[in-house]
Amino acid sequence: MAAKGKQSQMAQWNRSGYFRSSGSRDVNPDLQAERQTASFSVERLTTILDGGADNTRTRRAVEAVIHSDPGFSRENQYFQSQNERYEAAVRKSVHLKEKMHQMGWTENRPEIKYCYRALGGDLAFNVHRVFKNSILALGTDEQIAKWIPPADKYHIIGTYAQTELGHGTFLRGLETTAVFDISTQEFTLNTPKISAMKWWPGDLGRSATHAVVFAQLYIKGKCCGLHAFILQIRSLCDHSPVPGVIVGDIGPKMNFEHIDNGYLMLQNINIPRENMLSRFSQVLPDGTYVKQGSDKINYLTMIVTRVQMLWTEVIPMLLRACTIAIRYSVVRRQSKLNPSDPEAKILDYQTQQQKLLPLLATAYAFHFMNAFVNEFYNKGYTEIKQGNFDSLPELHALTSGLKAIITDYCTAGAEVCLRACGGHGYSALSGLPFLYTKLVASCIYEGENTVLFLQTARFLVKCLAAAHSGQPIPASVAYLSSVGSGKCKAWTKTDFLKPDIYAEAYRHRATRLLGNAATKLQALVQSGAEQYEAWNKCTIQLVQAAKAHCHYIIVKNFIDTVEKLKNEAEIQKILKHLCDLFALHGIFSNTGDFLHAGYISGDQMDMVTASYLDLLAVIRNDAVPLADAFDFTDESLNSALGCYDGHIYQRLYEWAQKSPTNQQVSRAYARYLKPLFQSAPSKL
Amino acid sequence: MAAKGKQSQMAQWNRSGYFRSSGSRDVNPDLQAERQTASFSVERLTTILDGGADNTRTRRAVEAVIHSDPGFSRENQYFQSQNERYEAAVRKSVHLKEKMHQMGWTENRPEIKYCYRALGGDLAFNVHRVFKNSILALGTDEQIAKWIPPADKYHIIGTYAQTELGHGTFLRGLETTAVFDISTQEFTLNTPKISAMKWWPGDLGRSATHAVVFAQLYIKGKCCGLHAFILQIRSLCDHSPVPGVIVGDIGPKMNFEHIDNGYLMLQNINIPRENMLSRFSQVLPDGTYVKQGSDKINYLTMIVTRVQMLWTEVIPMLLRACTIAIRYSVVRRQSKLNPSDPEAKILDYQTQQQKLLPLLATAYAFHFMNAFVNEFYNKGYTEIKQGNFDSLPELHALTSGLKAIITDYCTAGAEVCLRACGGHGYSALSGLPFLYTKLVASCIYEGENTVLFLQTARFLVKCLAAAHSGQPIPASVAYLSSVGSGKCKAWTKTDFLKPDIYAEAYRHRATRLLGNAATKLQALVQSGAEQYEAWNKCTIQLVQAAKAHCHYIIVKNFIDTVEKLKNEAEIQKILKHLCDLFALHGIFSNTGDFLHAGYISGDQMDMVTASYLDLLAVIRNDAVPLADAFDFTDESLNSALGCYDGHIYQRLYEWAQKSPTNQQVSRAYARYLKPLFQSAPSKL
Repeated sequence: MAAKGKQSQMAQWNRSGYFRSSGSRDVNPDLQAERQTASFSVERLTTILDGGADNTRTRRAVEAVIHSDPGFSRENQYFQSQNERYEAAVRKSVHLKEKMHQMGWTENRPEIKYCYRALGGDLAFNVHRVFKNSILALGTDEQIAKWIPPADKYHIIGTYAQTELGHGTFLRGLETTAVFDISTQEFTLNTPKISAMKWWPGDLGRSATHAVVFAQLYIKGKCCGLHAFILQIRSLCDHSPVPGVIVGDIGPKMNFEHIDNGYLMLQNINIPRENMLSRFSQVLPDGTYVKQGSDKINYLTMIVTRVQMLWTEVIPMLLRACTIAIRYSVVRRQSKLNPSDPEAKILDYQTQQQKLLPLLATAYAFHFMNAFVNEFYNKGYTEIKQGNFDSLPELHALTSGLKAIITDYCTAGAEVCLRACGGHGYSALSGLPFLYTKLVASCIYEGENTVLFLQTARFLVKCLAAAHSGQPIPASVAYLSSVGSGKCKAWTKTDFLKPDIYAEAYRHRATRLLGNAATKLQALVQSGAEQYEAWNKCTIQLVQAAKAHCHYIIVKNFIDTVEKLKNEAEIQKILKHLCDLFALHGIFSNTGDFLHAGYISGDQMDMVTASYLDLLAVIRNDAVPLADAFDFTDESLNSALGCYDGHIYQRLYEWAQKSPTNQQVSRAYARYLKPLFQSAPSKL
Repeated sequence: MAAKGKQSQMAQWNRSGYFRSSGSRDVNPDLQAERQTASFSVERLTTILDGGADNTRTRRAVEAVIHSDPGFSRENQYFQSQNERYEAAVRKSVHLKEKMHQMGWTENRPEIKYCYRALGGDLAFNVHRVFKNSILALGTDEQIAKWIPPADKYHIIGTYAQTELGHGTFLRGLETTAVFDISTQEFTLNTPKISAMKWWPGDLGRSATHAVVFAQLYIKGKCCGLHAFILQIRSLCDHSPVPGVIVGDIGPKMNFEHIDNGYLMLQNINIPRENMLSRFSQVLPDGTYVKQGSDKINYLTMIVTRVQMLWTEVIPMLLRACTIAIRYSVVRRQSKLNPSDPEAKILDYQTQQQKLLPLLATAYAFHFMNAFVNEFYNKGYTEIKQGNFDSLPELHALTSGLKAIITDYCTAGAEVCLRACGGHGYSALSGLPFLYTKLVASCIYEGENTVLFLQTARFLVKCLAAAHSGQPIPASVAYLSSVGSGKCKAWTKTDFLKPDIYAEAYRHRATRLLGNAATKLQALVQSGAEQYEAWNKCTIQLVQAAKAHCHYIIVKNFIDTVEKLKNEAEIQKILKHLCDLFALHGIFSNTGDFLHAGYISGDQMDMVTASYLDLLAVIRNDAVPLADAFDFTDESLNSALGCYDGHIYQRLYEWAQKSPTNQQVSRAYARYLKPLFQSAPSKL
């Protein structure tokens, strides 16, 4: 009865125009006004971001297909339990397979990446793809022929079981064993202690039938190191675990609840000799261990995974967060700037600009950096396929450092966007908590960021030594051998809008920090410290140096990207402003690095600040069009605050109605509250 | 059958000693070793942190009572849906009421705060307390006599309905109206547009029967500003909304799912004249509006709420996060420092020390700061009660800034702890995601942090002007009128371990940043800008100044606290190290602020770095005892990684078994996967 009364009251209010339906296509006038004053063509910028008009067309066609299919709806995503999210992800993945077949989209075509974007990434079987990739990389032709076709058809679901409870980063420390028995021609796999249990592999907890398991290979009592083995873990008839296998789900996480990250224990599991992936090493029937070819190419798997995660899981999340927070910040009005005016759009407050506009610039910087890395990777990949491994160390160091810095910044950025939307940002319905909790994982998986920065640092230290001894060094670090000025040449605040000026400042900072760390390292070793001990004592400073290097690379790439847009005057102009903002915000936020050795003086730093603050006001005017250019559909953003039409309050209210908390009367009332209330004095 | 097979296999493995029960009281030897080399008495430090041995005893007695009662178990917390968490919180709150009655604990006794600590804060009816406090502060004696007794007994549950969909920070902008009708002697309340809907109040969505509603008071067409009204929103018989009320839950959030944050729409709700809270303003029967007394005391409600949230909801969360991450970091071994040694404890890596040890120092700094603020508040409260409001602006500015800086740092700290535990930190079972998602809310509620920093800045600008014109200024800002040296007097790295040296550096920084912002503000106004426009253009720098001020206050208080521990040599020594670490880490992390005007030179900054790195190694040795001294029970920490015995892997595994994802076979198998697998070729 209460519900009925509510409905009739709602109907009455609706008739009176209290609620404007979010379905209507009118746009909030404050948001509309922002779009009318764009200094450039949003559509043109979108095609540039997409890498051409053809891509934009394909993307939009895919989005239309996906969004018109109710099987892909994300409507209830924020209300689902871990079980429900898993089930939905499996359902959508199987459905997507059919849809792809129906549409003629194959896995190598660009449509697949647009599907992923349209769906916001909530699909199952991501590690199944890694399972396949590992067989393709490490398997013999026979193994590929046997396992890939059924995997392609989802006749089997595989997982990639590397990480253990006790070991993630340090692969040599993995404790799972595979002992070869000549008499049976089989390997016997065991997870001999609790810390050896496989823990975290995706698709393992509830889906996988097979696994590529990494284990220490033992032949005749001798350890031959880590190798990969294919084994079945669940029955293809009834999905029950194979005898000797204990498998399950690792339970709730901060996000990724749609993925069944799992655990796996093995007790005396026997598999035939053919189930060791044997492209690069093989065990012969008599127990002879044979290494063949170079397995350096394996690094490529790790590298390509990092490159792919940046453009599917990481950078787009920052673009989404910026879109949501910037649109919200021109619809939300709060307090007054001028006491005689109406309340101000919150984006007109300098502090709000400080939070969001450098992030917008960062989003563009990362997008362009990513385009460069893809190109660099493809070039390296071709060379490596031809047997030329020269670019591998550079490619590895570059992608390690960039993965670390980009995930760090995107994670911090998502938090800033969330907090910049105040309480409404904290609501799950804003979409922002979801983006943050996904992004923070990216700082950990595919290489923990501190470890990655140190890998980049190790490469940089080597390159610096090579440069000092006059040896050639790779292009991305060539700046280490050039000699720059000891003082910044800027005289006015507008000098700091010259790319040469700020690029040189970043170069100086990176060179100085690396030089200092390397000098300290050398001094410690010369004073008698062991190499490992000296390295450990320099790691904080080495991480700083690696970050400064990556920061320089990103600034430099942004400058180069803007310079190439000579035929796009309007676009070039606004992107130049963004590039300036990205660069000056980086200096403004790390003043000490530039002031320390006096490269930039205190007075010059005041000019940086002045120019930086000027730029905020410039970018403010184009903030909404710059976010619009990312061209996310409402369905893909899935945010009550970020929709294109700006009807934030209507949507928050309408979406809240769908929450399970509003679908039923809580048992808490009858059980705990009713007895109390019935004791209330009647006179109240 | 599969489950049965698993059980028997598990039993077999258990017999073989594969699993060590986490219930046994043996401690992980790596963790044990850390405790044996403590340089001080942990028990003694605990009593100091508790404010005396009596408090420690009381706390432990309360913890024993709470933890021995299965009605308060937090065992399933990480597996619960929003509905389940709400229901559990209501159940526990009602149960706690009974328990308190039974134990003779009244609301004013210290036991209640220890209950809250033991329960990790997951209780309902927090806003019910604010409802009561607002009546106590704003109500007449008659109103208090009428409403407080039933509220105390939970015969009614109240909420505090201030925030609206469209307004949070800017109270004057609230749009709910209360129109007085002389003919009926009633107020008519309305939320006349969607943005006027009350949104966010806790305990509103599903529990509250009554609300204190803030609305713009209109008498004879004239707006008399914001006032508070008591109204019933749900029936005490069947809990259905009162006619004219639409009320519900705002849906999922990043955390606080146990709280039913709600929305409330009012259409022509009539309430008697007596229901306006009338201690400070009153509407007479003839419509005359009367103000009486000073309502300045209202600020105290806001201030005390912030003070209380710091010690119940914020600072303890950082202490918990540090405890979890530090214990984990001496049990977790990963990779090798010395190639010929076993794998190293991850806390032996400098980068891990850099993440966690400054946070540990920060936790102590905040704990001591909080003790000071409580004392300061109590002194101010006594004066204000006696009609002396002199300390109010200082108290308000101090608590605003400290709320902002402490919530900022604690939130960032929780993320650092989470990431420092790698993948296991990302598991909900670590407890760390939960701490982060709670803390990030504290940056928004009870005053958004940027707004709060600017309130502090406004106070500082006024004080600076007063100091320049020779007027007296409050104690906490007295340093603004002292004249310091323009250069830091340190000659060696050990000079930077002198509190005078670093305190003076922080003082110089705060004074300089404030002075610069104030000068810019003045210059803009003198060059013709409107005051509001000039203020907005300085806000980024004003926020920096406010942060520097708060940072200085916290460093200074840490120094003072350590100095007072003259009779506790051991404790004083280790806390002095922590204080040094906190101070030097702050300089190391904000080098630009100190280098800018040349107060600290580049060479001196290298000394800061050297001393800072030395301190990491010193604190490393006592890290576990320093975390142990916080004395959290395992039940209260509720972390698979942070338990006292250090059996991290066993607990992760055991706790994961309880996850709903392991309690049932997902429907996804039968629906989507089985049909696929049955097409698999039989030869696999």
